[in-house]
Amino acid sequence: MSKQYGPDYVRAIAPYQAGKPISEVAREFGLDEDAIVKLASNENPFGVPESAKEAMAAAAAELGRYPDANGFELKAALSKRYDVPADWITLGNGSNDILELAAKAFVEKDQAVVYAQYSFAVYALATQGIGARHIVVPARNHGHDLEAMAAAIDADTRLVFIANPNNPTGTFIPGVEIEAFLRKVPANVVVVLDEAYNEYLAEEDQYDSAAWVKRYPNLMVSRTFSKAYGLAGLRVGFGIAQPALTDLMNRVRQPFNVNSLAQAAAIAALNDSAFLERGARNNAAGYQQFVEAFEQMGLEYVPSYGNFVLVKVGKDLAAGARVNLALLKQGVIVRPVGNYGLPEWLRISIGLPRENAILIAALQKALAGDRE
Amino acid sequence: MSKQYGPDYVRAIAPYQAGKPISEVAREFGLDEDAIVKLASNENPFGVPESAKEAMAAAAAELGRYPDANGFELKAALSKRYDVPADWITLGNGSNDILELAAKAFVEKDQAVVYAQYSFAVYALATQGIGARHIVVPARNHGHDLEAMAAAIDADTRLVFIANPNNPTGTFIPGVEIEAFLRKVPANVVVVLDEAYNEYLAEEDQYDSAAWVKRYPNLMVSRTFSKAYGLAGLRVGFGIAQPALTDLMNRVRQPFNVNSLAQAAAIAALNDSAFLERGARNNAAGYQQFVEAFEQMGLEYVPSYGNFVLVKVGKDLAAGARVNLALLKQGVIVRPVGNYGLPEWLRISIGLPRENAILIAALQKALAGDRE
Repeated sequence: MSKQYGPDYVRAIAPYQAGKPISEVAREFGLDEDAIVKLASNENPFGVPESAKEAMAAAAAELGRYPDANGFELKAALSKRYDVPADWITLGNGSNDILELAAKAFVEKDQAVVYAQYSFAVYALATQGIGARHIVVPARNHGHDLEAMAAAIDADTRLVFIANPNNPTGTFIPGVEIEAFLRKVPANVVVVLDEAYNEYLAEEDQYDSAAWVKRYPNLMVSRTFSKAYGLAGLRVGFGIAQPALTDLMNRVRQPFNVNSLAQAAAIAALNDSAFLERGARNNAAGYQQFVEAFEQMGLEYVPSYGNFVLVKVGKDLAAGARVNLALLKQGVIVRPVGNYGLPEWLRISIGLPRENAILIAALQKALAGDRE
Repeated sequence: MSKQYGPDYVRAIAPYQAGKPISEVAREFGLDEDAIVKLASNENPFGVPESAKEAMAAAAAELGRYPDANGFELKAALSKRYDVPADWITLGNGSNDILELAAKAFVEKDQAVVYAQYSFAVYALATQGIGARHIVVPARNHGHDLEAMAAAIDADTRLVFIANPNNPTGTFIPGVEIEAFLRKVPANVVVVLDEAYNEYLAEEDQYDSAAWVKRYPNLMVSRTFSKAYGLAGLRVGFGIAQPALTDLMNRVRQPFNVNSLAQAAAIAALNDSAFLERGARNNAAGYQQFVEAFEQMGLEYVPSYGNFVLVKVGKDLAAGARVNLALLKQGVIVRPVGNYGLPEWLRISIGLPRENAILIAALQKALAGDRE
């Protein structure tokens, strides 16, 4: 190539590694799609709520029209649910969009972003995509070390990403510790608290982050409809922050970033508490199923507060990739996390009881083969 | 506000002004939604093709899953249609996403972007959003002055946006002139040729831009499914460029930027030639309907190659806003273009014959009131 295009920092980006789609694994390994179990992307094993399907059918007639760029009805529903004004809400094309918009809105080239080792890959991508400096704070017990993160904030820092629970490790920070952190952060540094997995928390672990938004003008809470609400394929998430931050998000947002069906489906899903409860029960049971199996198999795992478990499948740096391949050959898709610096581990999403059982059996077989 | 957040160039962004949604006009003016005619956003008056609805229904069951981040099937369909390898294609959340990704992938802060006066508003937004310098080249007859644009490219320029046909003016540049321009552009400057309205061109005006992509490594063609294909509410567009450019687009792209239903619907719409033909016939007839009415009313208009017409509704700088309000009160939504520096003009989308007739009658009434 005679000519180089683009900024150096763009050329240096390593694109996000998505979970392999079922169709791709079927093509690659010559398997029947119906026989494949996908526990790779922390999706909801119950799929889309029926309530959301009905809402989408009602909205389908108007798809020749652009979406409502201001998301009037969805923001009204969220405003009511979280007891914040509608103009404190930014809608995103998934919460991935919220995270990227925050980087773009609050940080410029050569300023700095703080995030934790082993935290969600999009924080690094969003930082790199604008040519900002990464301040990666070493993890403590696979989770956020908030004290070290507060200390790592320097004069160039404009943004801190915190994931709670964290993906891919499943670790959790109690609410009191987060609020203590918020009190320490300088007023000109924005904190994005990414709560993509919030709905899986047990009642005793819940805290009211929307109330913090009222107290901390530099806080943005990020949520998604892709996990507990079962709408990953539709793409919808949102941020909650005071108007000073929300106004800037709106300036860098693509006007039609959230499609019409996603807006309609999200309103229905938000009000479908029965669907959420069923999902939470299934997740708690599936977590027990995994944990018991891992303990029986003598596998180390990180206690998880999300809908997935990080499990150590070997001691050498190729273990994750090798066991992953052995699982793929059996038609089970999980997530290798070598790109997170965790090459001995796999991240496994909690599925339906039957899917979990297939994973456990396939993992036993893969590990037995691995020891031969 | 005690504290300012975000880069100066983000605080300076004027957010995109979307066409008013029907529901918003109904709320504001106390009108019945069914009585409102919207000719404001260059949407397809036939709505979504039936073929696309069927494809979406088939895909709906899997919406709990993330979309295919690589868009395998849609890229395969586009690859076949445009006779380019699948890895020359970038999918976008509408072509708006393609335009923003191009700015992010190819330009950094303080470098420059060239585009024409009166061309699509997103070029300015995408430029401003990354803190780049705007080089706005004065229009000639409301369209692109390619000679002046070639001359305006300076040492800092990394990107040129060209819209053909142009929105909001409807002007068209013959293929031979675009290719002459491409030969003049320095090899390190990327040209994004935005063909959102390409499908409305008469056969004699068509040219093969995908073939140009093979000859010009610095060319990216941008297309959308939001106009002729009738999928505006779903959000899907695409870019075609050689791998050196496409690879950088992929690095800055959000991995799940295009939702699953949009991918499925776009494949169906791409193959629905009957729907495209019906839309083209309706558009040609509606254009005649408008043009005859405007001439009868003595209104100046810009000859249009798109699915809309730019018409001058008065001589003073408040004319567009005033006539727009008079139309809104009658339940007709069109697009004021004062934000484009065209405050005496309105952009009117071509609708169904009945909708066009309602617009013509409402415009006559509004202008009669305006002269009183």
